[in-house]
Amino acid sequence: MHLAKVIAKVVATQKAEKLVGGKLLVIKSVDEYRNLMDHEPPYVALDCVGAGVGDCVLVDWGGSVDNDPRMVSDMSIVGIIDTIEFE
Amino acid sequence: MHLAKVIAKVVATQKAEKLVGGKLLVIKSVDEYRNLMDHEPPYVALDCVGAGVGDCVLVDWGGSVDNDPRMVSDMSIVGIIDTIEFE
Amino acid sequence: MHLAKVIAKVVATQKAEKLVGGKLLVIKSVDEYRNLMDHEPPYVALDCVGAGVGDCVLVDWGGSVDNDPRMVSDMSIVGIIDTIEFE
Amino acid sequence: MHLAKVIAKVVATQKAEKLVGGKLLVIKSVDEYRNLMDHEPPYVALDCVGAGVGDCVLVDWGGSVDNDPRMVSDMSIVGIIDTIEFE
Amino acid sequence: MHLAKVIAKVVATQKAEKLVGGKLLVIKSVDEYRNLMDHEPPYVALDCVGAGVGDCVLVDWGGSVDNDPRMVSDMSIVGIIDTIEFE
Repeated sequence: MHLAKVIAKVVATQKAEKLVGGKLLVIKSVDEYRNLMDHEPPYVALDCVGAGVGDCVLVDWGGSVDNDPRMVSDMSIVGIIDTIEFE
Repeated sequence: MHLAKVIAKVVATQKAEKLVGGKLLVIKSVDEYRNLMDHEPPYVALDCVGAGVGDCVLVDWGGSVDNDPRMVSDMSIVGIIDTIEFE
Repeated sequence: MHLAKVIAKVVATQKAEKLVGGKLLVIKSVDEYRNLMDHEPPYVALDCVGAGVGDCVLVDWGGSVDNDPRMVSDMSIVGIIDTIEFE
Repeated sequence: MHLAKVIAKVVATQKAEKLVGGKLLVIKSVDEYRNLMDHEPPYVALDCVGAGVGDCVLVDWGGSVDNDPRMVSDMSIVGIIDTIEFE
Repeated sequence: MHLAKVIAKVVATQKAEKLVGGKLLVIKSVDEYRNLMDHEPPYVALDCVGAGVGDCVLVDWGGSVDNDPRMVSDMSIVGIIDTIEFE
């Protein structure tokens, strides 16, 4: 999974049926201190956990066995990060 | 999903059977302000939503569960972007 | 899919059974004007359409639903590019 | 698989059901001498082998056939590295 | 598939059950002339063809249909390269 920050929402009227009703969020990768990695391109992920703009999130790129039926995209937001503990 | 802009069409007479009849579009990644990211290589995606040259689109790289039966390629255009809202 | 140019053939006597009899071609990514992107690493793809050295081709990296039974590798050449039309 | 070092733990109360109860670790790629590759972004992997902060680990990005039922994420820690032998 | 050179072996006592008994090799990408690409990170692949340190190999990253039952990892060595022919 990637660490990312939600920076915007996408509005797309014309889209694949499976995406209808889903919330599409623009994300950008962050480092372990939650700083945006500016040289990385933005991605669009489907929200599965109620995330919003400004949240620091966990993004799954697919490839797992026990897939969540809501994961109908190649990138899904699967968690909202509370804290990162360095011990 | 990636944010990209359609820049050209591909003509390929000799191709895998599954691609016959599909529209193959050359895309380049854009940033969240829809500016082309020139250092990124171009890709070719199969159109699933009626996109054309000049459109800003959502590109799915596969890996989802509930796949659209039209997604017979590793990269499919699954949405045309209307707006990106930063709130 | 990626845009690439076939630059060489691979000879490998010792290989996985599924690759026996297949044509293994070394490819390098090209930009939308078919210029080699020299900083990109070369890859090896299994030919599915009769491509040869010098051809500009479409390379599928897997991840589709309706897979071609000949696609037994993670990278398959699925088309030979005739032209790229910018409109 | 990637060579990586575990640098932190992630706490995420709000997450996909499949991740509940799993240990989420922040990892960073290392080179063959176990030095951190600072320009690489951090990732978050699900622990499958009892790894902890400071361990040098093997990370599987999915895509295998014989998947471990515990691999419910796109990145799973599948081994703890004892030594790397150069012969 | 990637062109790579085997540079070392990995010893990992604690690992996922599916990897037990498998040979884990550290690989680094090479260019078409078999020169190491030093800026690329090393990876660890499961050997499926009897490769050893020093061999130039073909590495499959998964994603194929007709998977070899020995490919239980996301990266498998599926061939040993004899020659690369530029014609």
